[in-house]
Amino acid sequence: MDERPVKAAVLVIGDEILSGRTQDVNIRQIAEFLGPLGITLGEARVVSDVQADIVAALNALRARWDYVFTTGGIGPTHDDITADAVAAAFGRSIDVREDALAILREWYAKSGTELTQARLRMARIPEGAVLIDNPVTGAPGFQIENVFVLAGVPKIARGMLEDIAHRLEGGAVTRSLSIRLEGVREGDIAEILGQAAKDFPAVSTGSYPWFQEREGGELSRGVAVVLRSADDDALEKAGQVLKMQLAAQS
Amino acid sequence: MDERPVKAAVLVIGDEILSGRTQDVNIRQIAEFLGPLGITLGEARVVSDVQADIVAALNALRARWDYVFTTGGIGPTHDDITADAVAAAFGRSIDVREDALAILREWYAKSGTELTQARLRMARIPEGAVLIDNPVTGAPGFQIENVFVLAGVPKIARGMLEDIAHRLEGGAVTRSLSIRLEGVREGDIAEILGQAAKDFPAVSTGSYPWFQEREGGELSRGVAVVLRSADDDALEKAGQVLKMQLAAQS
Repeated sequence: MDERPVKAAVLVIGDEILSGRTQDVNIRQIAEFLGPLGITLGEARVVSDVQADIVAALNALRARWDYVFTTGGIGPTHDDITADAVAAAFGRSIDVREDALAILREWYAKSGTELTQARLRMARIPEGAVLIDNPVTGAPGFQIENVFVLAGVPKIARGMLEDIAHRLEGGAVTRSLSIRLEGVREGDIAEILGQAAKDFPAVSTGSYPWFQEREGGELSRGVAVVLRSADDDALEKAGQVLKMQLAAQS
Repeated sequence: MDERPVKAAVLVIGDEILSGRTQDVNIRQIAEFLGPLGITLGEARVVSDVQADIVAALNALRARWDYVFTTGGIGPTHDDITADAVAAAFGRSIDVREDALAILREWYAKSGTELTQARLRMARIPEGAVLIDNPVTGAPGFQIENVFVLAGVPKIARGMLEDIAHRLEGGAVTRSLSIRLEGVREGDIAEILGQAAKDFPAVSTGSYPWFQEREGGELSRGVAVVLRSADDDALEKAGQVLKMQLAAQS
């Protein structure tokens, strides 16, 4: 088992997320996809459809993290500038590429859709990039070095992830263990959790308050305690100790 | 009408977002809250519960944007390090403050909850910060200069936003106009939209593909075109022109 922590970042590109019009779900979707591969997210950013902002964020993220996944901005319209921005970030040229064009031609021929000038935009791929298969709508994503350029529509992004799983080198797989407590507030258990964080340095300990409305309008509250570790033995031991201590508290 | 664009950033702090355990909704909630005040989001970041990461992101964001809103990490547990990180970013001291302590004392006395050592942590406020009222659970947020430190639980963050609306100086209010097209793909209308972007420079034009399953499983698709501008006349004119052109296309 490779114990080196492998960390990735997500770069969400799109004014529609920053305006509040669209709820991003790709950060979470990518985190959930990477977890079982032994890769955790270290950071995420959302930037607008401005080339300088995309380039600056991408260069900061790809220098720091093992992998970067971008979402959004690879469609056929004038505000889809991700491919050009990624090419600029890597200092590579970009143009309509024959392999991408062939995919679009075949896809649109099957569906009887015209391959317009605008749709040709989706065959613009930076020099030397490796294509990523898009099983949902044809137009491919692409990979340059440690950067994976995915669509913004969540179902398409998800389809593309399936094609790149085998290109990713994961680290130790992190497992988690949840303890759900009812009728308890974070402050009631903070000292127990603080002690556990000291006693089990290989285990990360998080606590997340929840509120729930019962039928009849009565409100119940509690805390979900989540332990997370790449060390199964430490996780199990910490879980046993905490369950006992927390049961005594609630 | 003040025409200067006023821009803000959101800094989401918390491992639970990056692990995929929790879906962030605060970026969208804050964007929706700021829009009617004439403030738009220019960037958002998600960082983990690591002080150096919080400090670096906060210092980058507060230097660039008019306002920064942080969410998360101000609870009573050991991993709630936002207040200390914000103090460090501003080079200020931090300690339990009497005004914050008085609020907690009154709140917990009312609810018959013990003010434990752990809960005292929530009265740790950087020197010179202005408190933000928390109408949901008592423990206050705080403001230093252009940075607003909010809770991570969305309902609490929302309550805190109500207390700070009057502290924010907005710019021109952006209005939007949506045109929903069915049976059309982005590539069909990309040229029309590209031309509109040139003809109406004061209007930003976005297009967002949608897919929908009808009863019986039949799939329908279309594109939502969203125009956005601080110039009402330009918005209306662009809307009229585009509706005509898009109707002719679909």
